[in-house]
Amino acid sequence: MARTLKVAAAQLGPIHLADSRRRVVARLIDLMHEAASAGCRLVVYPELALTTFFPRYWYDDLVETDRFFEREMPGQETRSLFEEAKRLGVGFHLGYAELVRESGRTHRFNSAILVGADGVVIGKYRKIHLPGHAEHRPNIPFQHLEKRYFEVGDFGFPVWRAFGGILGMAICNDRRWPETYRVLGLQGVEMVLIGYNTPTRNIYYPEPPHLCALHNDLALQSGAYQNGTWVVGVAKAGAEDGQELMAGSCIVAPTGEIVARALTQEDEVIAHECDLDLGAYIKNSVFNFAKHRRPEHYRRIAEQVGARVEV
Amino acid sequence: MARTLKVAAAQLGPIHLADSRRRVVARLIDLMHEAASAGCRLVVYPELALTTFFPRYWYDDLVETDRFFEREMPGQETRSLFEEAKRLGVGFHLGYAELVRESGRTHRFNSAILVGADGVVIGKYRKIHLPGHAEHRPNIPFQHLEKRYFEVGDFGFPVWRAFGGILGMAICNDRRWPETYRVLGLQGVEMVLIGYNTPTRNIYYPEPPHLCALHNDLALQSGAYQNGTWVVGVAKAGAEDGQELMAGSCIVAPTGEIVARALTQEDEVIAHECDLDLGAYIKNSVFNFAKHRRPEHYRRIAEQVGARVEV
Repeated sequence: MARTLKVAAAQLGPIHLADSRRRVVARLIDLMHEAASAGCRLVVYPELALTTFFPRYWYDDLVETDRFFEREMPGQETRSLFEEAKRLGVGFHLGYAELVRESGRTHRFNSAILVGADGVVIGKYRKIHLPGHAEHRPNIPFQHLEKRYFEVGDFGFPVWRAFGGILGMAICNDRRWPETYRVLGLQGVEMVLIGYNTPTRNIYYPEPPHLCALHNDLALQSGAYQNGTWVVGVAKAGAEDGQELMAGSCIVAPTGEIVARALTQEDEVIAHECDLDLGAYIKNSVFNFAKHRRPEHYRRIAEQVGARVEV
Repeated sequence: MARTLKVAAAQLGPIHLADSRRRVVARLIDLMHEAASAGCRLVVYPELALTTFFPRYWYDDLVETDRFFEREMPGQETRSLFEEAKRLGVGFHLGYAELVRESGRTHRFNSAILVGADGVVIGKYRKIHLPGHAEHRPNIPFQHLEKRYFEVGDFGFPVWRAFGGILGMAICNDRRWPETYRVLGLQGVEMVLIGYNTPTRNIYYPEPPHLCALHNDLALQSGAYQNGTWVVGVAKAGAEDGQELMAGSCIVAPTGEIVARALTQEDEVIAHECDLDLGAYIKNSVFNFAKHRRPEHYRRIAEQVGARVEV
């Protein structure tokens, strides 16, 4: 019998600074209803799906960012999402800013959770590849302060057996790194869930804007193909208080083909019935890791951080 | 002053079993003339550019394949190519089957050399990711016996300072593996030269034929973008004694964009004046490895060969 999972990518339009958590959760629930009506069993929301992409703003004191963070999940304002998921019998993936007290210290992570159709959290991922910078740069059009507001994730890249398959998570900039997919691929991943908030404008270099979408697609499609896995990429899109984020949410097959694509920069559901066995022929032939990989020649990847020109 | 390198991808049409080495070298020289006339300083030929793609044939005794291998480079039949390169003042990259006596034993590799504009060999690479199988499979339309006819390369993925930049090499199936580009990228590579012989038909799975080209492009483009490097992909193309090889040779910019593409399945030169500094903005921002990579979470890549499902 075919192992299939109908998944929804629930793209979000902009969330402005003034938008309340309550209003955002109502939008998430609307999207969940639409996905459930279409027969989806899993709804994938973007990175930082409860707030605006606040790393674009400088705050002198980290405490000023506390209002963007969740202290518990579910919390008072998100509980209705979990309850609705349980009522509808659908699971979901949600990105959010996580504030936690651990070992007597406050930690802030850019996190995502996978929640089962019973409304119970199955697993959590904390973003590893934090992009941007930590210092204030007043001379660029907006900030990208993830290195200031978040710590590097400390869970690695785990996978979970859920929804009939082997699922993994990654967040935004993680998706550009082939290491992300490969570490998941080495654990047999069959579907990778990835939310993102990606400014359409490159603040470091006058790059032609069309490259933003090309790079997103290349990363998701190659990651899918090179590991024989489904990839669900979900954007927060459109202009948040005037600052534009890239749309183009998509579902990518293990063949590297984009099988569903969002067309708007607004709240939008796209869905696909994914055959979780489709990647098997790739994992068993061209990307049969056991037969073809040569880790003795990959040592630099795990032993070296930056590039080193030695010639 | 701009650091530029005008490079030619010299695609080859089919080489049949009956074609003499002399005839093939004459074709290589014709392509070199065309590239030199266009102002190119480096000509990139495909994998196994002197013979047919013989791993499609089963030979009971390895010695029967000796006629496909070179014992010295240059040898009697290839010397004219080196002499012509020197006369024209162009360098070249050439893939060939290498037979060598080392430590009292005969070794066979799928190799490539980089030759300077003075006709002297700068460096050699031996293919690491050997695809296919080692045993005879009489029930498939053709064989893919690289695992029988070649040993795994023993040089790793070196880079060389040459032609004004930092150059690396890979061969055919190497290009599908993000590890290849990353090991080169960690050494600051600015241009990767890759020849290939890729059957258009998947012998393991009834895969739609259009995927062959998609997968080639995805691998080359993502490898270029994710390491901020030029990639020159060069095919041996067309039907060799009736067995079709994929064409589509291309030159890929560090932005991941294809800037030149072969249009035929025959001998064809495409060229591009490559700005070797173009990748610097990528290496300094989104793929600034020193700032963003997290090798502590990549250990599986270098410590584990095959996929392991542990959940």
